[in-house]
Amino acid sequence: MERIKPRTLSGFMELLPEKQAMFDRMAAVLRETYSLYGFTALDTPVMEAAEILLAKGGGETEKQIYRFTKGDSDLALRFDLTVPLAKYVAQHYGELTFPFRRFQMGKVYRGERAQRGRFREFMQCDIDVIGDGKLDIMNDAEVPGIIYRAFTRLGLRRFQIRVNNRKVLAGLFRILGLGDRSADVLRTVDKLEKIGRENVEEILTEDFGVTVETAAALLDLLEAADPVAAMETYRGRDPVLDEGMEELTAVTRYMAAFGVPEEAFRVDLTIARGLDYYTGTVYETTLLDHPEIGSICSGGRYDNLAEYYTDKKLPGVGISIGLTRLFFVLEEQGYLNEGLLTAPADVLILPMTEDQTAAVTLATALREAQIRTQIYSEQKKFKAKLAYADKLGIPFVLLLGEDELKAGTVSVKDMRAGTQAAVPTAEAAAWLNNALASLRTGTPVREPETAGV
Amino acid sequence: MERIKPRTLSGFMELLPEKQAMFDRMAAVLRETYSLYGFTALDTPVMEAAEILLAKGGGETEKQIYRFTKGDSDLALRFDLTVPLAKYVAQHYGELTFPFRRFQMGKVYRGERAQRGRFREFMQCDIDVIGDGKLDIMNDAEVPGIIYRAFTRLGLRRFQIRVNNRKVLAGLFRILGLGDRSADVLRTVDKLEKIGRENVEEILTEDFGVTVETAAALLDLLEAADPVAAMETYRGRDPVLDEGMEELTAVTRYMAAFGVPEEAFRVDLTIARGLDYYTGTVYETTLLDHPEIGSICSGGRYDNLAEYYTDKKLPGVGISIGLTRLFFVLEEQGYLNEGLLTAPADVLILPMTEDQTAAVTLATALREAQIRTQIYSEQKKFKAKLAYADKLGIPFVLLLGEDELKAGTVSVKDMRAGTQAAVPTAEAAAWLNNALASLRTGTPVREPETAGV
Repeated sequence: MERIKPRTLSGFMELLPEKQAMFDRMAAVLRETYSLYGFTALDTPVMEAAEILLAKGGGETEKQIYRFTKGDSDLALRFDLTVPLAKYVAQHYGELTFPFRRFQMGKVYRGERAQRGRFREFMQCDIDVIGDGKLDIMNDAEVPGIIYRAFTRLGLRRFQIRVNNRKVLAGLFRILGLGDRSADVLRTVDKLEKIGRENVEEILTEDFGVTVETAAALLDLLEAADPVAAMETYRGRDPVLDEGMEELTAVTRYMAAFGVPEEAFRVDLTIARGLDYYTGTVYETTLLDHPEIGSICSGGRYDNLAEYYTDKKLPGVGISIGLTRLFFVLEEQGYLNEGLLTAPADVLILPMTEDQTAAVTLATALREAQIRTQIYSEQKKFKAKLAYADKLGIPFVLLLGEDELKAGTVSVKDMRAGTQAAVPTAEAAAWLNNALASLRTGTPVREPETAGV
Repeated sequence: MERIKPRTLSGFMELLPEKQAMFDRMAAVLRETYSLYGFTALDTPVMEAAEILLAKGGGETEKQIYRFTKGDSDLALRFDLTVPLAKYVAQHYGELTFPFRRFQMGKVYRGERAQRGRFREFMQCDIDVIGDGKLDIMNDAEVPGIIYRAFTRLGLRRFQIRVNNRKVLAGLFRILGLGDRSADVLRTVDKLEKIGRENVEEILTEDFGVTVETAAALLDLLEAADPVAAMETYRGRDPVLDEGMEELTAVTRYMAAFGVPEEAFRVDLTIARGLDYYTGTVYETTLLDHPEIGSICSGGRYDNLAEYYTDKKLPGVGISIGLTRLFFVLEEQGYLNEGLLTAPADVLILPMTEDQTAAVTLATALREAQIRTQIYSEQKKFKAKLAYADKLGIPFVLLLGEDELKAGTVSVKDMRAGTQAAVPTAEAAAWLNNALASLRTGTPVREPETAGV
């Protein structure tokens, strides 16, 4: 038979079982966290009519999208979860209750140029709160609390959530006489961290005709240790700036009550994000020891989610965590917790008698007690059977031979400690659950203790 | 602005939040069950090279597949999870430990003619055990135990797992002198339940030249109350039949030990399944009160998983549950448990003071105690706030006003009972977890008590 060489498309992440278990654990943590904040899980098709996904049209999206026809249907794969959300909310508007709080964790597709650490299929983990006409700023205030909790539960410790409000910058630019160049100026100051103050000043003055004094005043403000306090002198001079300052203050006000410690949170007037999309609060989150990775969780407030599909005004606030990329990055940094139990089972039962009834009955009882149990039934040497458990990292092997059956016990081999104990069969489930308790805890991520010290 | 009418492609299931919660609960039950049996979770890309997915080629698959090009890549969406598994095992053979027990729950795509209850995107929930060269029959024996547990945990009670072995039929046909027509005969007897004995006899005699006596003998056997016992007279006359009988006996032997009650399990010599794929044990599962739905969980033993990609011999046994279709069918039958908590939150906090610090602090404490909590911050009338909780089915509303703050309590409104209680704030989490305990249990499916009685 002619054989085809098995391969996975480039740009598509396909993990070995242990790594997949870590990935899934991270996804589970995000799912649980989002649920704790009262978001409902949503699922939408991977495929939509191309005209739906491209309603906004233009730009990079159109080039990267997987688009094709089947019969006379013009189809495409979703490239994010926001456009499907907009469609969903517009389509089911009458059946939803607002504010509509949903999370969605699903794969999206972008036919980008293949490159290390860039994926063509990747999992987005999004939350959004959608208001009907209006949406209170308290929804924006809650978001950093969710980000903090999500990353802390994943096991990350050294990260910082940065918050800005686009209105503050827009008002400030107007006060400084830069209102006509606000998009250019915004794009330039957004690069502050990457290219440094000197280069930003040069671009502002040389490319966009900002005076040296204005550029200096602007950058002093943006780089102030306490930018909110520094901004106070500009209050009362522009209504948009005032609105932005009020919103920013409302967002920062309850940080402690939301459980976010001071060092994990910072107002940063230089972050802009998605120039033509966000209209108020914006968020970025960076690893303190790896700023080069960029933001690992971003989002913000938008005025109108679904304007391409409905005349209802649907303001919202949301964030997105790109889990596939985050997983890749954490693995590269050696941050994945290798101590986490990633075996497919907690227990491997080795039947040592011809009649396997006792082994099967024990397996059934253990499973009933929520213990993940495998029976090893292959005809192999004893050593090969133990090697199987060892290779997979199964922590306990249970031996059931004639002697054990007579004694009403099971021999429990602790593969990590290398010890063996005779446990009464009736007590095996409780004994194992007790022994497994410590192995079941642990976060999927573990930053090195010395990081940043 | 010109607007595009929001719509979802026909044949694609998109659920409202409450229904999605039920669907997700069912998926979670299957995931937990599969995990309890020591299967590792796998994920493979939705998209593969077309030559990989079509390695086997031909037939309905090729017509239904979503296939397209991007740049110079010939791509396709997976139409099942078996072909990607075959690719995965062949590709990662050296990195896997055998027997390789994996489960995968993911969407697959088939561009079938749209039709009620047929989906073009649907979730398959598969388990497979893959051996390296050999695989013990005990793996086949365990499968009905997994099916039984999965459906029981979903909440189904009246279903039956049917098991057959293809070798028994193959051997029997040879003994009866039908070896040269075995595929035709098999296809015909597979219709026994659907078209009845008389019609099967007619097809066998008229279309395939089976004598009236042989047809009668065959159908007597297949329809015997105890087909295994009836088959005993044929033992020793054909090695393939003998092998099949031995395997079938091994599979049935441990049913009770695997926890499968007698009435949930039956040997049925008439089921055939996938004529050119399965080689030994085959499984089907039907709802006793709805045989018209057909099998809701099928699978079997195959000799060689990945022959299109590797020369390694990889026998396996597996089953698949089509969750999207199962969900659709159960909803149609009114079998979904409407009493299940599908609200996005357990608790809605209504802050009644200007300063919301106390409300936010309480929310943080409740979330820390694993209570899914929303804060309602919109500027609405009290009645509208309660209506929000009511519409979403949030069971508890917490009121925090000046009076409560002074007293150090929170007013807990039980939306179902219509009662209200003052609970000390420090005890709120414990009080709520206690009250929520009963709402958190319950299976996603609930068959009507009277079904089949």
